[in-house]
Amino acid sequence: MNWRARLLKLDGLTPEIDDLGALAWGTLADCDPDAELVFLGTMEGKPCFAAVPPEGADGPAYAQPQIWSAMNLLSDKDLATYGGARSLVDWHARHRFCARCGSATEIAKGGWQRNCPEEKGGCGAQHFPRTDPVTIMVVEHDGRLLLGRQPNFPPRVFSALAGFVEPGESVEEAVAREVKEEAGIAVRDVRYVSSQPWPFPSQLMIGCHAIADDDALTIDKTELEDAGWFTRAELEDARAAGADGNDTLVFPRRVAIAHHLVTWWLEQKT
Amino acid sequence: MNWRARLLKLDGLTPEIDDLGALAWGTLADCDPDAELVFLGTMEGKPCFAAVPPEGADGPAYAQPQIWSAMNLLSDKDLATYGGARSLVDWHARHRFCARCGSATEIAKGGWQRNCPEEKGGCGAQHFPRTDPVTIMVVEHDGRLLLGRQPNFPPRVFSALAGFVEPGESVEEAVAREVKEEAGIAVRDVRYVSSQPWPFPSQLMIGCHAIADDDALTIDKTELEDAGWFTRAELEDARAAGADGNDTLVFPRRVAIAHHLVTWWLEQKT
Repeated sequence: MNWRARLLKLDGLTPEIDDLGALAWGTLADCDPDAELVFLGTMEGKPCFAAVPPEGADGPAYAQPQIWSAMNLLSDKDLATYGGARSLVDWHARHRFCARCGSATEIAKGGWQRNCPEEKGGCGAQHFPRTDPVTIMVVEHDGRLLLGRQPNFPPRVFSALAGFVEPGESVEEAVAREVKEEAGIAVRDVRYVSSQPWPFPSQLMIGCHAIADDDALTIDKTELEDAGWFTRAELEDARAAGADGNDTLVFPRRVAIAHHLVTWWLEQKT
Repeated sequence: MNWRARLLKLDGLTPEIDDLGALAWGTLADCDPDAELVFLGTMEGKPCFAAVPPEGADGPAYAQPQIWSAMNLLSDKDLATYGGARSLVDWHARHRFCARCGSATEIAKGGWQRNCPEEKGGCGAQHFPRTDPVTIMVVEHDGRLLLGRQPNFPPRVFSALAGFVEPGESVEEAVAREVKEEAGIAVRDVRYVSSQPWPFPSQLMIGCHAIADDDALTIDKTELEDAGWFTRAELEDARAAGADGNDTLVFPRRVAIAHHLVTWWLEQKT
């Protein structure tokens, strides 16, 4: 037992927050001696760990308001620490068996791998934490930006369209396919803007900008409840209105890359 | 049985090539009636499928010279078709069991999903084909480009450094970490250049450029056999020498994104 080591305090996958609004840490003595531990790195000279919970995530992040409350309190550094830790322990909790042969697997390499042990009848396969690339895009036409809302979004929230990159696609192809599928329009001049990890459960959000020559939308109602074009003035007004938005629009939350993409677009020279 | 449907001819995961150097196609009558089929899309008005082979990929792509010979023959369109198909059928072959509970899974949604059937004692989990984001970067210092070679590369082949994006990282953070780990140098001004899917087994290669302020390398010999800085003249000479390279350097192959990244850099205005 290393008494200097710190353990990230999690209730399932929800972070515990201390009185100062920061992530709460305990010691390895706090955790079940049989728990699988994931090494998160060294912070302030101390090795830091998180324990794999009995169950992984069930259902989407937007259905867990306590997670959102916690995330809105955290600093960017704590958000990054929590996000990386959450993705890893959730992956372990949902990958206790070998996808190749069905045997029970064992944690390895400080939590950055799981092995299917041949000495216990397994196939010897090695498994690695999964990160899924997702494209998320602000589409521009004639000075307006295309945003959409999924049926489960809170009222008046619109955000950038997004979708998983499929096997065999480039980033640019994925952007064009998603916009065509969800909104029925063709885009050109796809341009990378920035990226961000997203821990529900473990995405790499690849933020892009693209141009549409046409604004006639055909909305895929299985994906989007609504979508529309927003002017610079409408977006600036919603942003200025803060977290609760104005009467018609809530600007995407600070922790989401959509916030940065729309802000980036607003700050471009016109 | 749809007699118009086409089946991609694969020997395991190796494509069969016809007399004209194109992918060979058969009909669904050619395939084992019990085989799992993946829908690849409609081409020339005909639905196209590939069958999941008994075994997935074993070992890295560079150890399979017959794959490379085939890929060098194919057009860009056939390469994309083969790459997407290979990633999907290989994923199915290596994911016949539920990672959450260990039960046997079943193919669903035309091969774009596997389900763990509750009616057969499974847990009901849904599993989706995996795509792993990888950063690959050309690092520049004082007019020279950093390239490295892995121990298993053919002689005189040097390529761009690369590595998987880890949970909790952005593209830019992954580039900086990889270059620091593999070559011991810090980079700045990471810039996205282009992306490409890579089907060994299913990567999204995210190509970037970055600047190093220092050229003193500390090579991680577990990752790289060698690494060094190459001048524009050295790279242009190797490129002009063709597929076999010159006495000191083989330019990265046409099918690899490293080829495009180095070519992009050579064609930049100086």
